[in-house]
Amino acid sequence: MLYNDSIVALATPSGAGAIAIIRISGAEAITIGNSVFKSIKNKDLTKQKTHTLHLGHIIDDQKTLDEVLVSLFKGPNSYTGENTIEISCHGSTYIQQQIIQLLLRKGCRMADPGEFTLRAFLNGKLDLSQAEAVADLISSDNEASHQIAMQQMRGGFSNEIAKLREELLNFASLIELELDFAEEDVEFADRTQFHELLNRIEFVLKRLIDSFAVGNVIKNGIPVAIVGEPNVGKSTLLNALLNEERAIVSEIAGTTRDTIEDELVIGGIGFRFIDTAGIRETQDVVESIGIRKTFEKIEQSQVVLYLFESLKFKVQSSEYILEIEKVKNQFPLKPLVVVINKTELLTDDEVAEIKNQLQPLNVILEMISAKQNLGIEELKNQLLSFVNTGALRNNETIVTNTRHYDSLLKALEEITKVKYGLETNLPSDLMAIDIKEALYHFGTITGQVTNDELLGNIFANFCIGK
Amino acid sequence: MLYNDSIVALATPSGAGAIAIIRISGAEAITIGNSVFKSIKNKDLTKQKTHTLHLGHIIDDQKTLDEVLVSLFKGPNSYTGENTIEISCHGSTYIQQQIIQLLLRKGCRMADPGEFTLRAFLNGKLDLSQAEAVADLISSDNEASHQIAMQQMRGGFSNEIAKLREELLNFASLIELELDFAEEDVEFADRTQFHELLNRIEFVLKRLIDSFAVGNVIKNGIPVAIVGEPNVGKSTLLNALLNEERAIVSEIAGTTRDTIEDELVIGGIGFRFIDTAGIRETQDVVESIGIRKTFEKIEQSQVVLYLFESLKFKVQSSEYILEIEKVKNQFPLKPLVVVINKTELLTDDEVAEIKNQLQPLNVILEMISAKQNLGIEELKNQLLSFVNTGALRNNETIVTNTRHYDSLLKALEEITKVKYGLETNLPSDLMAIDIKEALYHFGTITGQVTNDELLGNIFANFCIGK
Repeated sequence: MLYNDSIVALATPSGAGAIAIIRISGAEAITIGNSVFKSIKNKDLTKQKTHTLHLGHIIDDQKTLDEVLVSLFKGPNSYTGENTIEISCHGSTYIQQQIIQLLLRKGCRMADPGEFTLRAFLNGKLDLSQAEAVADLISSDNEASHQIAMQQMRGGFSNEIAKLREELLNFASLIELELDFAEEDVEFADRTQFHELLNRIEFVLKRLIDSFAVGNVIKNGIPVAIVGEPNVGKSTLLNALLNEERAIVSEIAGTTRDTIEDELVIGGIGFRFIDTAGIRETQDVVESIGIRKTFEKIEQSQVVLYLFESLKFKVQSSEYILEIEKVKNQFPLKPLVVVINKTELLTDDEVAEIKNQLQPLNVILEMISAKQNLGIEELKNQLLSFVNTGALRNNETIVTNTRHYDSLLKALEEITKVKYGLETNLPSDLMAIDIKEALYHFGTITGQVTNDELLGNIFANFCIGK
Repeated sequence: MLYNDSIVALATPSGAGAIAIIRISGAEAITIGNSVFKSIKNKDLTKQKTHTLHLGHIIDDQKTLDEVLVSLFKGPNSYTGENTIEISCHGSTYIQQQIIQLLLRKGCRMADPGEFTLRAFLNGKLDLSQAEAVADLISSDNEASHQIAMQQMRGGFSNEIAKLREELLNFASLIELELDFAEEDVEFADRTQFHELLNRIEFVLKRLIDSFAVGNVIKNGIPVAIVGEPNVGKSTLLNALLNEERAIVSEIAGTTRDTIEDELVIGGIGFRFIDTAGIRETQDVVESIGIRKTFEKIEQSQVVLYLFESLKFKVQSSEYILEIEKVKNQFPLKPLVVVINKTELLTDDEVAEIKNQLQPLNVILEMISAKQNLGIEELKNQLLSFVNTGALRNNETIVTNTRHYDSLLKALEEITKVKYGLETNLPSDLMAIDIKEALYHFGTITGQVTNDELLGNIFANFCIGK
């Protein structure tokens, strides 16, 4: 890979808007920018200070392509650590294309996905886990995932890992030293302190590994299976849950969101609602395939919402109770919430009757009226209560990245080996091997140990222009 | 309207991307920006120079929303002429929303569409026709419309109008002066010079009014009706025409375009291809409705492409020739191009035979093979030859805006009246009224004369954030 050529990319979303930003980074970025830019004050870009803005025109030969504003950053004081120019132009796709084509002719090449951030990493502006957090930050769509990405980008996670790695490295070198003096049988590394450090590392690693369970659901959304017959009011329920959030979104004119479909953010946590066909008993082959699929979806979800319509429930309660029991027996550990909708159609006595009937099942019951917005807040709180947000509230480090999770597991495995070796008086030279392995896995997280393939995999998932 | 409050909007296209820009303008823009921004170097934004960039974090209470780069512009040295801040944040819609909501709480309000440019106009940074060109520039999707918008934004059009208006204003005041001395019967305004000026104005107005015909088609694309039976290869032809252009687009990775459908850019000019059903003779009521529609579409178009398949044409030539004649008789002044596709299936003799058959009709004939890409370049040149690009090539001012066109027509009407008055020795006081009217219409173009309703109409068509 060649790392000092000048790369260019559109950094703003594609499509027409008021403004588009075209970003160039590389040793020649400012020189190339200067060759196509005519400042209204006849300024020479190569002679300007870093972190300044300049108004002028992009000129292709004699033709003026656009009036633009150029942001100038001199390496190492830029995102990538290299000389960088950002051209803020009018947002027509035609203009974007014309300017990018001009820059390509002037010696830039199109940036690969994530290449700006890759360069920031290679130039020591970010460690690897911070670079990965940049992509997470851009794709975060709710408070919890945003908060975790933000914390990781600011180095919370890397710092913790790097500190432990350094302490371990200290002991590793002392033990290596012992090997040099092997014949004299000295102990430079204090075994008690070393054991204490291994315990500490083990504790931290286990905590981080445990945090992945919550980190993963926060990053990807908590899957909730909605079980219920067709027309029982699933979409009305989703709309009721969504109601408040939608209002916030639509308050900001000019920001459109993709259709939310069945992914809702409740209390800052993402929930993915998975529709299922219900599990009514049947002889029909086709329907029994449907039931099997419902069970599969329940299996993949972390919470089950079992939705009924009040009047139908009143009539067929015994049948329905059998269905609920079936789900409970199949998934005894999975949180199950029975939701009775359209309670506005019931008398108080009928409500009490349903509550009585369901009591023996020992399920969580929510009586709601999606139409009249009754019980929705309670249902939301119930859903939130299933998410262990303790770590989040206490600002603890949470692991969300599968790659980090794997490295942590492997590091823990090695640390356990080292600890066992220490306790069983394993010769130092054998122990040194396990310590090196542990150090290696720590290093892959922050990027102190890396290779082209790993970097390729990580940055390929970035968007262009970042 | 209140014009010194601080407005905020997303200036980049909505959706997720590497970067998003949030723009604030108003007297308090920098103060508000400073209240949510924590510079990594502890800089106070209100004490920084204009046209500088600052790295730091957006802080909501204790919570860090994002690491951002702030561009700072002090009024009057900004786009709007007011204090302006542009926050370059990570491009997740969640972050965009959070920051905008924070700024709304801190005293900004959401900007109306085009409100930044409206303020630029109200603060004298742009005249009205330049402001209108900004919207045209953003929506331009080909070279010709881009060039016209660029020229208008740089003031080519306004300067011409403003100069004429000033000269007319001179004479107007001299004539007003004569009215003050009416009893002494003096002539301050030289009638010969005045007549010469009116001639000049008339000439320029007529040229500008004439340019609207070409300006309008360049802005909106030239409508081309494609007549032909189903399956005659319309989409193959469009693809062949499109081929070259598409390649250019796809060279720029990371820029996606909306489906081009039937709008193609050929030689920098936009063409809108309108599909029609053909005009085969029929007794069928439904089909004869189809024929009527085809004729309507031909009427709306500026060029007609009549497409045939070579083998079918060979068999049914006499029938087809009748159809062609029918179109020619109905629209004698409309350019008609007969296109015979799939010529690769014909022998040289058969090609010559078709040419012979069509010669008496005196139509433009193009023999092509869309599949083998033969004759496509010739067809493109033929289409381009219908567009009068002379004015464009000579960098003349071209009117594209219907509002300007209307004002120019009205101004011409008044100028003609003034000229007639001068020639018939109309009393100065009556002539002064017509001159005022003409001045008024000139003024509406550049915005020297304006009102809230007019401004509202113009800027409502802008996008948010511009």
